Amino acid sequence: MVAAAGTYDAAAAVAEQAGRARTASWDLALATRARKDDALRAMADALVAAQDAVLTANADDVAAAEEAGTEPSVVDRLRLDASRLAAMAEGLRDVADLPDPVGEVVRGSTLANGLELRQVRVPLGVVAVVYEARPNVTADAAGICLKSGNAVLLRGSSSAARTNAAVVDVLRAAVAGAGLPADVVQLVDSRSRDSVGALMRARGLVDVLVPRGGAGLIRSVVEGSTVPVIETGVGNCHVYVDASADLDQALAVVMNAKTQRTSVCNAAESLLVHADVAETFVPRVVEALQGAGVTVHGDPVFAAYDGVVPATDDDHAREYLSLDLSAAVVPDLEAAVAHVRRFSSGHSEAILTRDQGAARRFVAAVDSAVVLVNASTRFTDGAELGFGAEIGISTQKLHARGPMGLPEMTSTKYVVTGDGHVR
Amino acid sequence: MVAAAGTYDAAAAVAEQAGRARTASWDLALATRARKDDALRAMADALVAAQDAVLTANADDVAAAEEAGTEPSVVDRLRLDASRLAAMAEGLRDVADLPDPVGEVVRGSTLANGLELRQVRVPLGVVAVVYEARPNVTADAAGICLKSGNAVLLRGSSSAARTNAAVVDVLRAAVAGAGLPADVVQLVDSRSRDSVGALMRARGLVDVLVPRGGAGLIRSVVEGSTVPVIETGVGNCHVYVDASADLDQALAVVMNAKTQRTSVCNAAESLLVHADVAETFVPRVVEALQGAGVTVHGDPVFAAYDGVVPATDDDHAREYLSLDLSAAVVPDLEAAVAHVRRFSSGHSEAILTRDQGAARRFVAAVDSAVVLVNASTRFTDGAELGFGAEIGISTQKLHARGPMGLPEMTSTKYVVTGDGHVR
Repeated sequence: MVAAAGTYDAAAAVAEQAGRARTASWDLALATRARKDDALRAMADALVAAQDAVLTANADDVAAAEEAGTEPSVVDRLRLDASRLAAMAEGLRDVADLPDPVGEVVRGSTLANGLELRQVRVPLGVVAVVYEARPNVTADAAGICLKSGNAVLLRGSSSAARTNAAVVDVLRAAVAGAGLPADVVQLVDSRSRDSVGALMRARGLVDVLVPRGGAGLIRSVVEGSTVPVIETGVGNCHVYVDASADLDQALAVVMNAKTQRTSVCNAAESLLVHADVAETFVPRVVEALQGAGVTVHGDPVFAAYDGVVPATDDDHAREYLSLDLSAAVVPDLEAAVAHVRRFSSGHSEAILTRDQGAARRFVAAVDSAVVLVNASTRFTDGAELGFGAEIGISTQKLHARGPMGLPEMTSTKYVVTGDGHVR
Repeated sequence: MVAAAGTYDAAAAVAEQAGRARTASWDLALATRARKDDALRAMADALVAAQDAVLTANADDVAAAEEAGTEPSVVDRLRLDASRLAAMAEGLRDVADLPDPVGEVVRGSTLANGLELRQVRVPLGVVAVVYEARPNVTADAAGICLKSGNAVLLRGSSSAARTNAAVVDVLRAAVAGAGLPADVVQLVDSRSRDSVGALMRARGLVDVLVPRGGAGLIRSVVEGSTVPVIETGVGNCHVYVDASADLDQALAVVMNAKTQRTSVCNAAESLLVHADVAETFVPRVVEALQGAGVTVHGDPVFAAYDGVVPATDDDHAREYLSLDLSAAVVPDLEAAVAHVRRFSSGHSEAILTRDQGAARRFVAAVDSAVVLVNASTRFTDGAELGFGAEIGISTQKLHARGPMGLPEMTSTKYVVTGDGHVR
């Protein structure tokens, strides 16, 4: 990590770091919960104590980003202050308070021949996280991985390189001070894209790769990685207002799902309205949305209202992450399901209905990570659902689906105990 | 599938089949357990009823394989007779008797704000299985996938093409007769390797790819696939005889693990012996192994005995699947663990010991899918562990690890129910 960018051999550096992470992970896997929680609290205290150094490093990153003409919204995500740093520390303390997933017996039985069988949660081993500007991910991911017994390789964005280096230095010292190997938390060089590629090809060295960021990053990691990937976060979330919906409730949920926070993956991007209530509901919802600054991209029914922009298939497929919403009227629930099947990213879909049968049909037929009945898509969130810290929201079907907390960062092994049993 | 090999467009054909599988999977996902079990029993009955047609097709495959000079062991795996066909049918009936994993509530709670949260098992969707000569996999995989609510694309070996086509024709007719879409079971053209490549690149069309076969097949699928893969089966399994082992028991377990069946992934391939018992145990075990026809590839301590071949690192790393065993003496349990970490494929490792502390240390430190205490590695098997049918033994850490039964062929989704809840 000290070589100039031109001479940085990403594959060799990642292999070397992953090797140290593997060795460190063996100790961490055997660490007691008490020792891990001590380390997490020490990390939190150290972050607060190192506030000046971290904020100075961050100010350098922010200045460089501004000088490079980076978008203000990206610069804002990059920027730390005392309160954001305190929130990072608090996040680490919250993780310490959560139960330890390692060692949990998931199932167990005694077989007919007397063999005792237990399926026990164990760490994944070495986890790599590739992420974009927000430096809080550095502390969050380190904390979640440490608590779940995993060594972590953190590959943040180059725009946050100084901040991430300062944060990781602080965390490593705290981990070592708590009696665990510092190499359970390592920062991967971000000066070249090569290090992302090297992580993607580090099969056997890295057990799992978690990309966190925009759709482009996630797609490139998912398609190019030979290391198993957990795909996170792209959300083209739908709200479907059924014929029997309580329309006041429906309006409140649509407004909340679309406008409470627009830049997040669980915000609604698409609205579907049953034809039977279109005449009443469409004008109300268009007015409310436009009043909140939302541009509605609508089908012909919606587009008949002032200010509604005609929607294309691209609109129906888009994750806007902005004050935009695609909207369509559907003849029935089955058509709503078909629309969701065609355009959804499989993140979160909500139905508003007072009809129990409709709710059952929608829940059964919609195959998304989270299906909500009479609730806003904004509830798809680890903290909201009571899981505590979350490393992302999985939209794939393998391993973990929906908000991923500590148990999702583990594997299991079977332990079989006998008295010299043979077949 | 009717075009000549030269004009077969694998990507288009796989996309078309996967599309039909997807549509069929929507119906299958909503099918009741009763309907699925009826279909499984109808499939079993139909296989037995179609014995003549299936065995005739198989005889053609066997004749072609023999003519092509195929190894006798491979031809044997390819060959069906009335009894093997009856076992395939019985396997389908066994799957019908197993509980339905779909709909199981994995966890659930009511949140502080009154939202009801349930995590429910759902099918994966469209599963592709790529496998080698054994035609029984065709019926096994179809049965397991159907019961777990998944449409399956079966890509067997070209040497079994006629047999697989006959079996799949029978199964599809039985599925349709039971009121489910025939397209939940489809055979993928095996005349060209291109169809494997097309399945590997069918991201978004195929949800999960399961390779079943030799190490070469598995490696190529794992490294080239953009579809999520569940890696199965390579087993370099170790048996470690601790200083405190009951040596009679240890001898019985070693002999069972190595010789009861050699061609399977849960057979032992490596023996480690604690130095304190080497003088007593090594000559006994060498004599017994050699008496059973086993070639021992040993370290210098073992190689001092007649007939023991000096072992290389390659021997320690190998999955022999034959009457061969690598063997070494280790100074202590930690050295045994280090040897396992270096050479194991992460499948199954056993310790023989009477020392509770040693058992605890070995179980905690060895990170394999199954760790056995005083029991043969041959118990790593879905049927032996009471899971019923198994689609393979996963040696990866993501999603499923160890023998994969019906629950491992599912994902989950969260269902969140409220009364118009907003954030």
